[in-house]
Amino acid sequence: MTTFVLFGGTGDLAKRKIIPALYSAFLNGRLDKNFAFYGAAREQIGDDEFRKRVSAAIAQYSKADVLNTPEKLDAFLAMTFYTKIDARVDADFAQLKSSIASPDTQSTLFYLATGPDLFVPIVKQLSEHQLVGKLARVVVEKPLGRDATSAREINQALRVYLQENQIYRIDHYLGKEMVQNLLALRFANLFLEPLWNRTWIKDVQISISEQVGVESRGDFYDHTGALRDMVQNHLLQLLSIVAMEPPVNSAPDSIRDEKVKVLHALHKFTPDEVAKKTVRGQYRAGAVDGQAVIGYQNEPGVPAHSRTETFVAIRAEIDNWRWAGVPFYLRTGKRMASRSAEITINFKQIPYSIFGGNQRNLRSNRLVISLQPEESVELFLKAKEPGEGIRLSDVMLNLDFAEASTSRRVEAYERLLLDAMHGDLTLFVRDDELSAAWDYVDPIMTTWQNDAEGLKSYIAGSWGPAASSYLLAQHGSSWGEEFVEG
Amino acid sequence: MTTFVLFGGTGDLAKRKIIPALYSAFLNGRLDKNFAFYGAAREQIGDDEFRKRVSAAIAQYSKADVLNTPEKLDAFLAMTFYTKIDARVDADFAQLKSSIASPDTQSTLFYLATGPDLFVPIVKQLSEHQLVGKLARVVVEKPLGRDATSAREINQALRVYLQENQIYRIDHYLGKEMVQNLLALRFANLFLEPLWNRTWIKDVQISISEQVGVESRGDFYDHTGALRDMVQNHLLQLLSIVAMEPPVNSAPDSIRDEKVKVLHALHKFTPDEVAKKTVRGQYRAGAVDGQAVIGYQNEPGVPAHSRTETFVAIRAEIDNWRWAGVPFYLRTGKRMASRSAEITINFKQIPYSIFGGNQRNLRSNRLVISLQPEESVELFLKAKEPGEGIRLSDVMLNLDFAEASTSRRVEAYERLLLDAMHGDLTLFVRDDELSAAWDYVDPIMTTWQNDAEGLKSYIAGSWGPAASSYLLAQHGSSWGEEFVEG
Repeated sequence: MTTFVLFGGTGDLAKRKIIPALYSAFLNGRLDKNFAFYGAAREQIGDDEFRKRVSAAIAQYSKADVLNTPEKLDAFLAMTFYTKIDARVDADFAQLKSSIASPDTQSTLFYLATGPDLFVPIVKQLSEHQLVGKLARVVVEKPLGRDATSAREINQALRVYLQENQIYRIDHYLGKEMVQNLLALRFANLFLEPLWNRTWIKDVQISISEQVGVESRGDFYDHTGALRDMVQNHLLQLLSIVAMEPPVNSAPDSIRDEKVKVLHALHKFTPDEVAKKTVRGQYRAGAVDGQAVIGYQNEPGVPAHSRTETFVAIRAEIDNWRWAGVPFYLRTGKRMASRSAEITINFKQIPYSIFGGNQRNLRSNRLVISLQPEESVELFLKAKEPGEGIRLSDVMLNLDFAEASTSRRVEAYERLLLDAMHGDLTLFVRDDELSAAWDYVDPIMTTWQNDAEGLKSYIAGSWGPAASSYLLAQHGSSWGEEFVEG
Repeated sequence: MTTFVLFGGTGDLAKRKIIPALYSAFLNGRLDKNFAFYGAAREQIGDDEFRKRVSAAIAQYSKADVLNTPEKLDAFLAMTFYTKIDARVDADFAQLKSSIASPDTQSTLFYLATGPDLFVPIVKQLSEHQLVGKLARVVVEKPLGRDATSAREINQALRVYLQENQIYRIDHYLGKEMVQNLLALRFANLFLEPLWNRTWIKDVQISISEQVGVESRGDFYDHTGALRDMVQNHLLQLLSIVAMEPPVNSAPDSIRDEKVKVLHALHKFTPDEVAKKTVRGQYRAGAVDGQAVIGYQNEPGVPAHSRTETFVAIRAEIDNWRWAGVPFYLRTGKRMASRSAEITINFKQIPYSIFGGNQRNLRSNRLVISLQPEESVELFLKAKEPGEGIRLSDVMLNLDFAEASTSRRVEAYERLLLDAMHGDLTLFVRDDELSAAWDYVDPIMTTWQNDAEGLKSYIAGSWGPAASSYLLAQHGSSWGEEFVEG
């Protein structure tokens, strides 16, 4: 049997992501027979009230048709409980322990969907109450620290009570089907690996753009910014999977060994390089999808003269044999023109065109791996237009997974929850990966703090500051949405 | 203005292919304004009778909806004429000359859709009547000779009257959209060329299978056989395009220079090698698509003890740096299980699978270029099945040209006719290509003649003799339709 304890069980993330993911796993028969789900939070509510909230969360955020499966929902609620918990109150943990029958002989998963300041206090309490036996695992959410130093402190504190292989640092981008598929595409096919290096690849672009602003999280966001919120974790994780060497095998640590090598090989910027190779921006009032929206400094909870970045673009470099000289362009922003997350591998131009002059300016081959809004793999290449002569045009080889397979797709959170329950660490971030990622962004943060002038503004609903385009144009490249053939 | 004279104008090929192609070009506005079409044959008929036959051919074999465009058909028939011609009769050519206003100042295309024995007599007459000026071009159909010696003789005889660049040796497989697309795919993309060699490719399979038998051509076919009818021309042409080096440019002779280099590099078989590396077969009674069909030796016009092959499989080798050690499997047959023409590039297995044991027997990546029954390009690779863990399955990147482009597709014969009218020799076979192809098949023919026992039988509706599978199995490969994963 498995016990799942969700700290922050009444919070926003629990409601929107974790509970619906858990319910989906239940509907698909993926939970143990004697499964127990404990919501844990500071509020003084009982099981019934919590079950009501769970029902409401499922009704609002789950893809499952709850109305059509009331008996399923009832069965799920029957294994759902609530336990009031305050990290400072010993008695609460004693109570939790008495609820969980035998923590040493059963698999227990503690999911800390709380602020990072609570991670260590909670884990300390769990440990002192003998709740983290050998079979216990702890999932922690981002952000794990504010910089390299604080992240190392948290990790060290957690390691007082837990083994590294009990700590599941979640990055939900790693749960996305396409990210895992990238491993399969690269290492189960002969096709890509010979081309996957500086000889054939011109640049790599990893872009996560959001249309939303800071929503209700203005205060939190203003203390975080896009670099900490997105680059340090999601973008660098994607980069490390794109750039890694073939792992020894597919064991979690073999894969993480290769990822961390990439992060270590990232070229650390001097203050001069930060000025040249990074762009940061903050959105002003504008319009997204035809709707007028306010500027960042007018958002609730954001100071009127905030210098926090809501947009980042970086020309990253990897100092190793495979990637030397190949720019990895990273970009993320809020209030952008569209919502998308994609990895684009731009291959070099062919060395010479035998088809004559007007064919030479065609866009070179590219592989686009989309994570949002839809997951897909598309290979763009040139083919001959039907008919006389040889006129080339861009065509797309589209790998349609929905069509290719009848297997059930699994959402990122559900996938990661199940992996954590099964003890599969592959898609979770190891401490050294986390530290290496912070080591990369630390000098950028420091330089930015000393250079208030570097923050550019951009109109909400645009693709960010013009400097972001210039960053690529200097190297004869452009973001995917800007390219025009001719 | 252009004058088009079709020798064999009342014959089967004219009716089924050439006239419908010409009419399609007309409908699509691709013919000159002052176009004139002369049917030429031995029959004593007039323009009106010929026009009736042209109408009937179009109604039966054209894709155009003739009933909906009677005024178009009338306009086409108004430029259609008949001229009775016998290669032995001088007066017939004098008459033709008087019909064609000024053969020296207008473009004239003579299409010899006749037996090869008439090629030289007709061209001699045309020449003696000053009908082949600088602007004249002559299209000749296969078969061009019976062996290397006779092909050289015909070529030499033609060259007495014509320049090489006036001779358009047609191979209608070269007119197929996908064959031309292969040039674009290979040389307009960075993607394929780095992989297009012995380092990454395991073998290449070129297979043209027909469901039909010899139809009404038993007598002709029994003097020809599959090697002369299909291998010497179509299969070796396809092979040369797959295997060629990047040409200097896309000029006809640059491309043909590279093709002929491939043909010269083909490893010529000793009699011993013929026995080991070729398989020939002849069909026995069987069933195709559920219909009982008779054996080859019972076909009308075929001798009861014929030793002519209706099936050929060859393990060809190319002796050059790019392809040394890569088998090119060629196969063609009549009365086969299905009708298809395809080129399959089988890539090697990945050097090592990180995904563990049961993933290792998966079929390796392959690129399949289909010419018949549908034209398509498909890239088969491995992707991850959606869901937990990493289970790999075969997925297909499909280049759908019909969807990718709004351009009109052009049938092979129309394309080649228009190319010949425009003086584009790219897709026609040069004399040295033809000789080189005959030089390759000659030793095979000779060895077979001295080894009557080598002819295997196969059941109509099968994939040919079992020896054909063995030919590949010896090298750890199998024909596309035989492969089973696991």
